[in-house]
Amino acid sequence: MGEHFEQRKLTPLTEIGEFGLIDHLTKNIVLVNPETRYGVGDDAAVLQYGEKLMLVSTDILTEGIHFDLTYFPLQHLGYKAIAVNLSDIYAMNGTPKQVTVSLAVSSKFSLEAIEKIYSGIHRACANFNVDIIGGDTASSNAGLFLSVTVLGSADPEDVVYRHGANEKDLICVTGDLGAAFMGLLLLEREKTVFKADPNMQPDFAGKDFLLEKQLKPEPRKDIIDLFREKKIKPTAMIDISDGLASEVFHLGKRSGLGATIYEEKLPIFQTTFDTAREFSIDPTTAALNGGEDYELLFTITQHDYEKIKTFSDISIIGHMVEASYGFQLISKNGVQTPLKAQGWDAFNTIK
Amino acid sequence: MGEHFEQRKLTPLTEIGEFGLIDHLTKNIVLVNPETRYGVGDDAAVLQYGEKLMLVSTDILTEGIHFDLTYFPLQHLGYKAIAVNLSDIYAMNGTPKQVTVSLAVSSKFSLEAIEKIYSGIHRACANFNVDIIGGDTASSNAGLFLSVTVLGSADPEDVVYRHGANEKDLICVTGDLGAAFMGLLLLEREKTVFKADPNMQPDFAGKDFLLEKQLKPEPRKDIIDLFREKKIKPTAMIDISDGLASEVFHLGKRSGLGATIYEEKLPIFQTTFDTAREFSIDPTTAALNGGEDYELLFTITQHDYEKIKTFSDISIIGHMVEASYGFQLISKNGVQTPLKAQGWDAFNTIK
Repeated sequence: MGEHFEQRKLTPLTEIGEFGLIDHLTKNIVLVNPETRYGVGDDAAVLQYGEKLMLVSTDILTEGIHFDLTYFPLQHLGYKAIAVNLSDIYAMNGTPKQVTVSLAVSSKFSLEAIEKIYSGIHRACANFNVDIIGGDTASSNAGLFLSVTVLGSADPEDVVYRHGANEKDLICVTGDLGAAFMGLLLLEREKTVFKADPNMQPDFAGKDFLLEKQLKPEPRKDIIDLFREKKIKPTAMIDISDGLASEVFHLGKRSGLGATIYEEKLPIFQTTFDTAREFSIDPTTAALNGGEDYELLFTITQHDYEKIKTFSDISIIGHMVEASYGFQLISKNGVQTPLKAQGWDAFNTIK
Repeated sequence: MGEHFEQRKLTPLTEIGEFGLIDHLTKNIVLVNPETRYGVGDDAAVLQYGEKLMLVSTDILTEGIHFDLTYFPLQHLGYKAIAVNLSDIYAMNGTPKQVTVSLAVSSKFSLEAIEKIYSGIHRACANFNVDIIGGDTASSNAGLFLSVTVLGSADPEDVVYRHGANEKDLICVTGDLGAAFMGLLLLEREKTVFKADPNMQPDFAGKDFLLEKQLKPEPRKDIIDLFREKKIKPTAMIDISDGLASEVFHLGKRSGLGATIYEEKLPIFQTTFDTAREFSIDPTTAALNGGEDYELLFTITQHDYEKIKTFSDISIIGHMVEASYGFQLISKNGVQTPLKAQGWDAFNTIK
């Protein structure tokens, strides 16, 4: 009999206890950053940052809202919890260095399930050279909650805020948009099909890319590295978690400006486009409001155009304008309509 | 009609939305620490710490496990969520400077309920000069979850770890023990009585102190200030969240030592003592294993005895011994028994 059919005895969390669980989950942690002076194991971790600035961000993920365990593999969940937090540090043009990870789980979860989540957490931390320095575990009466806080560093002159954009700055976006949302819709559809007939096999042929964007988003460290290499400093930057339109609003409002976005410039992959049509959703709406892209939205001066124009992974989608013009979308046929942010809302989720 | 009888219209969270809620909760935040360069409002907060060490700790509080909303006032819950985190920074002999606060709530919660939690959070931050620099809000399918990360600073030579104790060092504890646990038992008892007869009024006469220790613990900043003033540096320190016995084990094991604790030296207030008896609980067990005291357990060299002997709020309860002696409790009648840590366990809570 292969491993596939092996019946492993699972370890209930009540058997190992909180301290046992913490020891078990943290025993293999290796610290890689010199700024991390002391990690897990005391009342607090100890860090040292010479003259650098320190960046701090936090995100909480809740079962049934941010993820559905019927189709979200636990390793990927752990990976994603770290990835979305690192994305916030990259969006400040900084380097993530440490994370704390807290989780609350129902005691019905097994140790092996928690280990899977942690294996994804470790994988993400290893991929991006981030130290796990602490956390907390707690019981929950219902559901799984993951709360991550990330710390990063940056030279004072490198930090990029949301509020630094100027009129006429070019608006750029990395990668492509709407794919993670299409991945979510595919998974939700297959869940419904599976409920009706558990013998149905999911049909994801050719859609791996969409699923991967949903289940295993990669924060754009490569873009920050490129900025360093090419000596580019965006004037403003934000990561795209709630949908492009919502982030354009944030960036514009913080900078005291409006923005003009060109529909034809929105980077939408063919698979995303086709899948949106399959779901009778306007691909542009998917790109503007889908959310969870974890790409970077940033502005640069026109002067920097030459430096980035050759990168296929960066699209120039519009420019910043005076606040009085507001936020406008120029459609493919040249019609101007007000940009709408229907962004994902934590209290009104798609169900 | 007095305010007491006024029927206020409550605001459902779905009406205000996530961004509205964040704006609403953070609009009155005033930053007080010069190290806080930029707080709420971007992808990450920005901090600067010259040559100091930075301390980081995090705790997650879950409804039904750490608190019961049938008797836990929301303001106090917010206060306690901050207090227990600050306690971890004080336990490193550091100064807390910033917090991030994430909460996941069911959409059945009203805006006003969340405001109450935040008013407690603001109160605690104001009392201890701590800046709120970020956080996240999310929906939960069931229950309330509060996740706080605290950042603090310390001069490199001041940090006190759990692992620094030496043989013969004196073991000290601040304040008194067991009161928070008695407060919890009182509240649980009244809840049972109330369920049986909702017209019953709770009888907490003379027990305010116990309730306060449970509902509104105060982290021991005053002790850290005293250390500064008297030039005392503990050799090891930990805060008492899971019960004295459990923390003595942590401190001893990290330091590679055992410990001898004298029962007669345990600081137990008369009200705690009497209430324990009322519940047919050995007061010593309450002091050793009750938990949630949020006092400090620390060790000092015998040389420092003169510096602390006059402080009524610090009790010397024993001393560190060679590891081979293990952890022993010397009872009031001189009998030696192994110390037992039955500490509160996140996966086996009292219900």
